[in-house]
Amino acid sequence: MFKPRLFAPGPTPVPEETLLELARPMFHHRTAEYRKMLEQLTADMQHIMQTKQAVFTITGSGSAAMEAAVASVVARGEKMIAVRAGKFGERWSDLGKTFGSSVVNVDVEWGTAITPQEVEDLLKQHPDAVALYTQHCETSTATVFDIEGIAKVVGKTKTLLVVDGITGVGALPFYMDKWGVDITVVGSQKALMLPAGLAFIACSEKAWKQIDATPPGALYNSLRAYKKSLATWDNPWTPANAMVRAALKSTGLIKAEGLEKVWAETRRRADALRAAAKALGLTLYSKSPSDSVTAINVPEGVDGEALPKVMANSFGVRVAGGQSQLKGKIVRFSHMGYTDAFDLLAAVSALEMALGKLGYKVEYGVGVAAAQKVLAKGC
Amino acid sequence: MFKPRLFAPGPTPVPEETLLELARPMFHHRTAEYRKMLEQLTADMQHIMQTKQAVFTITGSGSAAMEAAVASVVARGEKMIAVRAGKFGERWSDLGKTFGSSVVNVDVEWGTAITPQEVEDLLKQHPDAVALYTQHCETSTATVFDIEGIAKVVGKTKTLLVVDGITGVGALPFYMDKWGVDITVVGSQKALMLPAGLAFIACSEKAWKQIDATPPGALYNSLRAYKKSLATWDNPWTPANAMVRAALKSTGLIKAEGLEKVWAETRRRADALRAAAKALGLTLYSKSPSDSVTAINVPEGVDGEALPKVMANSFGVRVAGGQSQLKGKIVRFSHMGYTDAFDLLAAVSALEMALGKLGYKVEYGVGVAAAQKVLAKGC
Repeated sequence: MFKPRLFAPGPTPVPEETLLELARPMFHHRTAEYRKMLEQLTADMQHIMQTKQAVFTITGSGSAAMEAAVASVVARGEKMIAVRAGKFGERWSDLGKTFGSSVVNVDVEWGTAITPQEVEDLLKQHPDAVALYTQHCETSTATVFDIEGIAKVVGKTKTLLVVDGITGVGALPFYMDKWGVDITVVGSQKALMLPAGLAFIACSEKAWKQIDATPPGALYNSLRAYKKSLATWDNPWTPANAMVRAALKSTGLIKAEGLEKVWAETRRRADALRAAAKALGLTLYSKSPSDSVTAINVPEGVDGEALPKVMANSFGVRVAGGQSQLKGKIVRFSHMGYTDAFDLLAAVSALEMALGKLGYKVEYGVGVAAAQKVLAKGC
Repeated sequence: MFKPRLFAPGPTPVPEETLLELARPMFHHRTAEYRKMLEQLTADMQHIMQTKQAVFTITGSGSAAMEAAVASVVARGEKMIAVRAGKFGERWSDLGKTFGSSVVNVDVEWGTAITPQEVEDLLKQHPDAVALYTQHCETSTATVFDIEGIAKVVGKTKTLLVVDGITGVGALPFYMDKWGVDITVVGSQKALMLPAGLAFIACSEKAWKQIDATPPGALYNSLRAYKKSLATWDNPWTPANAMVRAALKSTGLIKAEGLEKVWAETRRRADALRAAAKALGLTLYSKSPSDSVTAINVPEGVDGEALPKVMANSFGVRVAGGQSQLKGKIVRFSHMGYTDAFDLLAAVSALEMALGKLGYKVEYGVGVAAAQKVLAKGC
């Protein structure tokens, strides 16, 4: 028997005390008690997103907040730029199309990052773009983008920078205000150590000028509706109030640990896995590997669709395979949230054992030892 | 000390075994295990909605499913009819406006129901209306509409009948297919005995013809996106998979009790509260009172904003006050979901005691006895 260990890039494991909070009796949301919870969660998320702007809590997946960032921002016929470097970049493009924007698709080779220089050139070509949409980490390719550098060049223009921080915020260093990101989108089921079902979004003053002047293209994910109701610590629609209560446990854990320490620990786990992969003769898929999620190329001769299945079914370690054109070609390990060094050793060991089962020549313990060497430095 | 008792019309109490399910370890959603859960929940919801059509599970509030029923159905410029008999009727109208429909607003006096005859006349005036939007129970006024009768007249036309069953389905007799309702919308936090955060929607073949021919106005709440992914028992966006797992406990309880018995018990509790109100010299707000929620007029001389506060703060019984123009004028009691006859007696007793505190002349026990008399018949 193996304990189940969740290493997919979302949902990630939820701390026991947060789970227990979800088991508490239901309560009413139109109460001072709930308003206080929402106020606290907003403050916690401001800290985690490193912003002084209001953070809105949406009842929905991360994609709901992505929709809010398009439907509330770009009017029909207005231009937007979608950086497509993977599956989630495509979502920005799909959203723009749905809401009648004039979408400029920028196709970036999967596994590579768009550079600030490329963004600068793009904005010179499209000075009329209302917003540029990108990921902080493109989950499907485990690739991190230089948002600080990109924000610097976007900040010099009239264009807004919208960042999908779903597989970034809480895991990777991120300073919304200091860097000058205009809109940041976060989901609950990643670095925030919560079940899926809540999304968060914050907007700069530059973004609010555009939002206040733009008729919302949707109602459920309308930022104006959320802004109006947050003035009284309320929600425009019945909120997932039990999730808000539970969220405070997880954000409380992040605050207790210290945000920068959480980032550093996430990075150390990523470093350790990368060292393990190297020691095992494996290579990384991404040319700009993220610290929140790692994609390892399935080696020659190993059945890439079988690998994550064997890891899950024989050893209890749930990693994610590749999506779309990467199906069967990579395995992805999350480093986010409620997971520690020894969980990672279990995952590396399961990778070794599954590779062995699938005919890859592996010397057991080599990956584990390489990971340990990195992890020991932090203790 | 009083135990907290939730009598607001949503969120309603969640059964202990469902709460415990929410406390189970997180799991991955792209697994056979999750697909089976979604398949089971879909079947359970088909039973509860009395339909053979696919039921889609949306991560969001009931309002997300309401948006899906507008944004996926009525194209920009097309005509829709919104029956506005309360706060939630207004939401249909707001949605239509957001998505660029030509909205015909039909204002019905709050606390009264629109009749099938009125609907017939409306459709003669507007034969080009793509859909007529209404509530089964308008929660803000605790008023039930004759959906069976309305469906009969709408069914003779080209227009679709879209029903907000959020405070209806699972509490009131409802036969989607037999009655001929085209689109039904449900929320998790009412008769389904779940936290807020999931919404459900099902569509008739007549509705699908329109949906398949209509470019979706939104992406997150796009019925086409949900239909496409349900073909593989998947979700278009990361689902609230822990909620789906927990939902099976609550729908299982409904099946074990028997859907018709649940409806009958809900009705008996409503009958009992109405008898109690009468015995206490109180009157109902609605001229067509729903069995899912009861609105009692605050009697002359009693502070109507204080009444629900005293019930909650002094006696632990959380009812809802009135919204908008009904603020301070009514108190609303839910009869939905995980609540029994003795919970209701507690609520009646708290009402008596709070009224007494606020200066209303009340003979203690008169309301309780009247309620008991009704409740005893069912045992």
